[in-house]
Amino acid sequence: MSTPTSVNPLTLTVALGDRSYPIHIGPGLVDDGERLASYLSGRQVMVVTNDTVAAHYLERLTSALSAADDRLRIETLVLPDGEAHKNVDGVSRIWDALLEAGFNRKATLVALGGGVIGDMVGFAAASYQRGISFIQVPTTLLSQVDSSVGGKTGVNHPLGKNMIGAFWQPRAVLIDTATLSTLPERELSAGLAEVIKYGLIHDSDFLGWLEDEMAALRDLDDVVLAKAIERSCAIKAEIVALDETEQDVRALLNLGHTFGHAIEAYMGYGTWLHGEAVGVGMLMAADLSMRQGFIEQADVTRTRRVIERAGLPVAAPREMTVEDFVSRMKLDKKNTDDRMRLVLMRALGEACVYDQTPPALLGECIEAYPRA
Amino acid sequence: MSTPTSVNPLTLTVALGDRSYPIHIGPGLVDDGERLASYLSGRQVMVVTNDTVAAHYLERLTSALSAADDRLRIETLVLPDGEAHKNVDGVSRIWDALLEAGFNRKATLVALGGGVIGDMVGFAAASYQRGISFIQVPTTLLSQVDSSVGGKTGVNHPLGKNMIGAFWQPRAVLIDTATLSTLPERELSAGLAEVIKYGLIHDSDFLGWLEDEMAALRDLDDVVLAKAIERSCAIKAEIVALDETEQDVRALLNLGHTFGHAIEAYMGYGTWLHGEAVGVGMLMAADLSMRQGFIEQADVTRTRRVIERAGLPVAAPREMTVEDFVSRMKLDKKNTDDRMRLVLMRALGEACVYDQTPPALLGECIEAYPRA
Repeated sequence: MSTPTSVNPLTLTVALGDRSYPIHIGPGLVDDGERLASYLSGRQVMVVTNDTVAAHYLERLTSALSAADDRLRIETLVLPDGEAHKNVDGVSRIWDALLEAGFNRKATLVALGGGVIGDMVGFAAASYQRGISFIQVPTTLLSQVDSSVGGKTGVNHPLGKNMIGAFWQPRAVLIDTATLSTLPERELSAGLAEVIKYGLIHDSDFLGWLEDEMAALRDLDDVVLAKAIERSCAIKAEIVALDETEQDVRALLNLGHTFGHAIEAYMGYGTWLHGEAVGVGMLMAADLSMRQGFIEQADVTRTRRVIERAGLPVAAPREMTVEDFVSRMKLDKKNTDDRMRLVLMRALGEACVYDQTPPALLGECIEAYPRA
Repeated sequence: MSTPTSVNPLTLTVALGDRSYPIHIGPGLVDDGERLASYLSGRQVMVVTNDTVAAHYLERLTSALSAADDRLRIETLVLPDGEAHKNVDGVSRIWDALLEAGFNRKATLVALGGGVIGDMVGFAAASYQRGISFIQVPTTLLSQVDSSVGGKTGVNHPLGKNMIGAFWQPRAVLIDTATLSTLPERELSAGLAEVIKYGLIHDSDFLGWLEDEMAALRDLDDVVLAKAIERSCAIKAEIVALDETEQDVRALLNLGHTFGHAIEAYMGYGTWLHGEAVGVGMLMAADLSMRQGFIEQADVTRTRRVIERAGLPVAAPREMTVEDFVSRMKLDKKNTDDRMRLVLMRALGEACVYDQTPPALLGECIEAYPRA
């Protein structure tokens, strides 16, 4: 009954009191059924994935799991791939499958895939029978460094991204770095946008290291990749531990996201990758930070260069007007009754939440920003 | 800018750490706009109700609220009345309305109505932008003594009752006892089933008091009614404080509910009132408790009499077979992987969770139970 076990993955703990959980990072974790089984709540398990990831990893993961414990009742659900399917209907399919299987409150959901799967499975877990356990096995760089930490779950609504959801923490996160070998290059770049973000908001040394190692990261150098993922998760975990439900400091993690969400919503979810939109959004935030007098032109140039070297777009969609941006940015969850709250940079490596940007300055910034 | 203020309502606190909240009980609270306004999170308010309750109280409540603070932005949403509408589509209408209004995370939902409105609005609040504030203004006896306390929110699924939802606490509960004057007698009786339940599970003195005061309760005697509501909420608050997410002792509140849910699901949600099904369910649980040797025939008779005197049915639906009950009872959230957990009575006034009932004994009990 033994399964191949990954050798000494890196482990960090997200410290959230009785909702704390470990993140394991290393090659081979998809095949480590014993480790996965050790985090189950009962014997009922439903592995949810998408059709793209299923082809590579679903059978491997379920085989490892049943080899680890043959008393488990393992069900699988394969959803269509893509951000366009991240909606209430997608979550309903998970609820339906759980009920059709007769699964109870001791059941565990396993999210095998990228951020879309993780967000949907997390919200299904948060809301099935008022909350069951779930485990994340993220297979994209973006989800490994972003949705692994923080417990944000949810789905999109035609009127806004991630508008329906919950804060719900996983029992564990298993990051198998070897799964990045099957990730399309464009998605790897999108994930690098979030990695760069951690440097920009919180750690200028990490930003410098990323500038040096960008080529190695894009070549999937295992050691460099693992270090980048670990540092990203650690920065996010540190910030989330201070502010689990996003009352204040956690908002810093949204650098580039207010602009980026406007791009995603305008273009139709799934047209731009989330990380691509965030990459341009961070540049727009950098530009606005300069206009506010917080950073220099040289900082903006350096930001542009590292984003470019990650293989990401740096120009906004040609057809988007100032109003196209502003109307969507007003829906942002960070806003209070009457003020738009934006994440800007006081310096490279130090973000801040700022709600005093004059609307005219924001308009100028968007108007002047380069278009593709 | 003054509104009529209710005179000294009874107040109790549900103690849940930083999620603690007050329950105010008294006549006239629907018109107490200042009290309601004091619990808002920001200036955006959406009052959700059903078409029946709207005719009596919606205009009164919103007028009182805007008189208390004319800077509020008050939106209203009127949903169709009835348990049949307590589903994901109903919650979607609330999400849609919030997004169409452009409401943000500082918005507050007000649930004006019975348990269906409270459960749907509560889940909408739990899941809109990952959680916003809500206030309950329950207008049925059932919701005043049941869903006011405990933070259970959610909706039905074709395969099971309350299968989709969350634990989410209100900021405050305002119980206007005068609203019971417009409640149909059948619904008053259904609410009395839950009041009787508190006596049966936790307080034999209260049970005795209810036997004495049943006529006064059905005559809507204000003083007796307020005392019954206060004692019911206090018992529930005491149990919920011990076990917010229903790991153990909170399950006692489900006396009669496992049988009752089977009746509701079989007959189609909304055919039997929840309290009617719980009334029969408590009698079936009493009968099973006697068969287990926990209580005497005299206790069962006494239970039947108080339920009858509340104007409730005491016979199960004629057409329901043992299998009709058992198949639905197996879906109950209290169950673990392989055991059915039932709430039984060790004595009148002392309930227990019991998972050792032999399936054959359960079958006999259901088979022999009187049908209408």
